[in-house]
Amino acid sequence: MTFEENLERLGLTLPPAPPRGGVYTPIQDFGENLLYASGFGPAIDGLTPILGKVGKEVSLEDAQEAARRCTLNLLAALKAKIGDLSRVKRIVKLLVFVASDDEFYDQPQAANGASRLFVELFGEEVGLAARSAVGMNVLPGNIPVEVEAVIELKAE
Amino acid sequence: MTFEENLERLGLTLPPAPPRGGVYTPIQDFGENLLYASGFGPAIDGLTPILGKVGKEVSLEDAQEAARRCTLNLLAALKAKIGDLSRVKRIVKLLVFVASDDEFYDQPQAANGASRLFVELFGEEVGLAARSAVGMNVLPGNIPVEVEAVIELKAE
Amino acid sequence: MTFEENLERLGLTLPPAPPRGGVYTPIQDFGENLLYASGFGPAIDGLTPILGKVGKEVSLEDAQEAARRCTLNLLAALKAKIGDLSRVKRIVKLLVFVASDDEFYDQPQAANGASRLFVELFGEEVGLAARSAVGMNVLPGNIPVEVEAVIELKAE
Repeated sequence: MTFEENLERLGLTLPPAPPRGGVYTPIQDFGENLLYASGFGPAIDGLTPILGKVGKEVSLEDAQEAARRCTLNLLAALKAKIGDLSRVKRIVKLLVFVASDDEFYDQPQAANGASRLFVELFGEEVGLAARSAVGMNVLPGNIPVEVEAVIELKAE
Repeated sequence: MTFEENLERLGLTLPPAPPRGGVYTPIQDFGENLLYASGFGPAIDGLTPILGKVGKEVSLEDAQEAARRCTLNLLAALKAKIGDLSRVKRIVKLLVFVASDDEFYDQPQAANGASRLFVELFGEEVGLAARSAVGMNVLPGNIPVEVEAVIELKAE
Repeated sequence: MTFEENLERLGLTLPPAPPRGGVYTPIQDFGENLLYASGFGPAIDGLTPILGKVGKEVSLEDAQEAARRCTLNLLAALKAKIGDLSRVKRIVKLLVFVASDDEFYDQPQAANGASRLFVELFGEEVGLAARSAVGMNVLPGNIPVEVEAVIELKAE
């Protein structure tokens, strides 16, 4: 199944590409067919914001939902950049930052909210990336999760 | 305008390439014309150190100045490595670590101190990178900001 | 000396490749001969776990030992992926996450436990990578150190 078919099957739609929050470019080319995606947060217009630190104000379940929303925002920006997400050869690497209470130890479970969505949308061969999932004392705007990625496109 | 002309226009000079602070190489080649720059801190000989956590001992303005100094140190090491900064094709990606009070949420504004200098020196097409800006509970030597980068050079 | 000869000279053996702790692939290919290694922790079967934050429950010496173990786990996964570690052209970049007390400032010294082992095993030309070493308020499972890496293989 294609990315778009999987998106429909899951009852999802991509949000509008999020506005920039600083002096950076959302998605940058490098090398041959490689892209670096900036850190994306979970804010999506029309959805109740998820704010705070995981293990404190934010539950693991809400952290997973936040990680999913980060992924949708990242994919929206990626689509705005490359036009057609079937051009993705593989999601190479995710770095998932989880704003955490000092005694919260389940960053990988929180990050799975992002990783599972990549796999559901692209399939395991394309969507299962290398990953680090780490605890942060605080993230921009008090968001609980931020996701950055390295992505490889098919050779044209 | 070239990098060197912009440097002069801004009244800046690159500091000496900073000494290594551990078992690593400041700038490493990989792939075709790609470079990975280690995390650089803000210490520059002759300038008053900026130390502490942003939102606590360090103001946003001082954090931006620290981010600028990290950038100058990184560029000094890059110049020592490649000789001529006009060889830079683009600044691909910045990862800006901001040592933050648990309630400080403006990491992107702090990181803009680095990003703006890259754009001022290289122009937007070359200098506007993808970026993540994240809060850390503490950085080496109690510095407030550390900047690492992926850089692409023009094909020779 | 080869990697395997250095391993024997140091009296070390690689542990079994560690089990996955989430929805990710331990080592992912990208570009031409590049690999991204996920964040690896220090848990090795049969060794007493090292847990907690450096500068608090964990000493600098134990943090260095934890960083060494992360490296052994990463290399075990790399060997499972590529078969023969003499295929490594260079360790490009390390990102060393150090779970730190808010007043612990020696993340580079902790990270040297990883960097020194890479150099001892591969030699300086191959094993001396670019690096960032940063403080985190907490890491998965309360581990004190996590290491991710970019690795380049020789062209076949």
